[in-house]
Amino acid sequence: MIIRRATTEDFSQMLPIFREVIEGGDAYDFEETASDQDAFDYWFGKGVNSWVMEETISDADKDSAGSKILGFYKIIQNHRGRGSHVANASFMVSRETRGKGVGRKMGEDCIRNAKAMGFRAIQFNFVISTNEPAMHLWKSLGFKELCRLPGAFNHKKLGFVDAVIFFMEL
Amino acid sequence: MIIRRATTEDFSQMLPIFREVIEGGDAYDFEETASDQDAFDYWFGKGVNSWVMEETISDADKDSAGSKILGFYKIIQNHRGRGSHVANASFMVSRETRGKGVGRKMGEDCIRNAKAMGFRAIQFNFVISTNEPAMHLWKSLGFKELCRLPGAFNHKKLGFVDAVIFFMEL
Repeated sequence: MIIRRATTEDFSQMLPIFREVIEGGDAYDFEETASDQDAFDYWFGKGVNSWVMEETISDADKDSAGSKILGFYKIIQNHRGRGSHVANASFMVSRETRGKGVGRKMGEDCIRNAKAMGFRAIQFNFVISTNEPAMHLWKSLGFKELCRLPGAFNHKKLGFVDAVIFFMEL
Repeated sequence: MIIRRATTEDFSQMLPIFREVIEGGDAYDFEETASDQDAFDYWFGKGVNSWVMEETISDADKDSAGSKILGFYKIIQNHRGRGSHVANASFMVSRETRGKGVGRKMGEDCIRNAKAMGFRAIQFNFVISTNEPAMHLWKSLGFKELCRLPGAFNHKKLGFVDAVIFFMEL
């Protein structure tokens, strides 16, 4: 498995994972009405740096090889100008890959890349409090829970639940 | 003094105030390199609802009348879709008008309008901790300080200072 910079050619493999994640209604503010263009802009818009994690597939029978995207993440400036030294990041992992450490590997890679890009900190603005894998992962990687935003997320099954702000100085 | 919905015709009076505020480098993430178009998009872009506070000027000598914009504010959704029930707002007041209660009147009006628009809460994402009039105003209007973002703002004179997240349930 490798992590590399995403290119727009990856989008056809990323879109179904985006749709899967959004459909859950438990992790992202996007609704299912989000268009393919919305998804494209989110991962490849101006100022967005994206990475994909993929595994190489060797198929001896067919004498061919390919690669399969398991997840992806992006780094952007959390604010423009006078707030541009703090990064913001977002992550998506395909349903079949969850629980296999892909999120953790991408999280570690994200911290390294944000540092290398010169950011002084990473801030997550909207981690859903009921998203236990995410809550656990960011804490275990050393992010600090700064505060909870009361009822700020309209969870598809649970209704209004808190969102959480995480922060890590680099 | 009245508060009314802003129209694009107000922009010529709003722009110098925007420039004044940005030049301070102590309250907004915009840098002085921000273009007029950036300013326009910020106050009149898609999904932005803006209001201006103005005073009527009667000029008996000239047998004419006019109005002068003292400040303005906007309400947007703080997040799309599943976070769109929380409002975000921004305020600017002309330098000569500061300390005269214009910010407070606009703050009260903003709370009323956010309620009328159906929002369940208002969140400020980036109040600069050293901006004492703003810090005082939001607390006195009933906003709750949820957390501080360490060194998240690059203050023109003071360097890296904390930014503060305020929240009010409506």
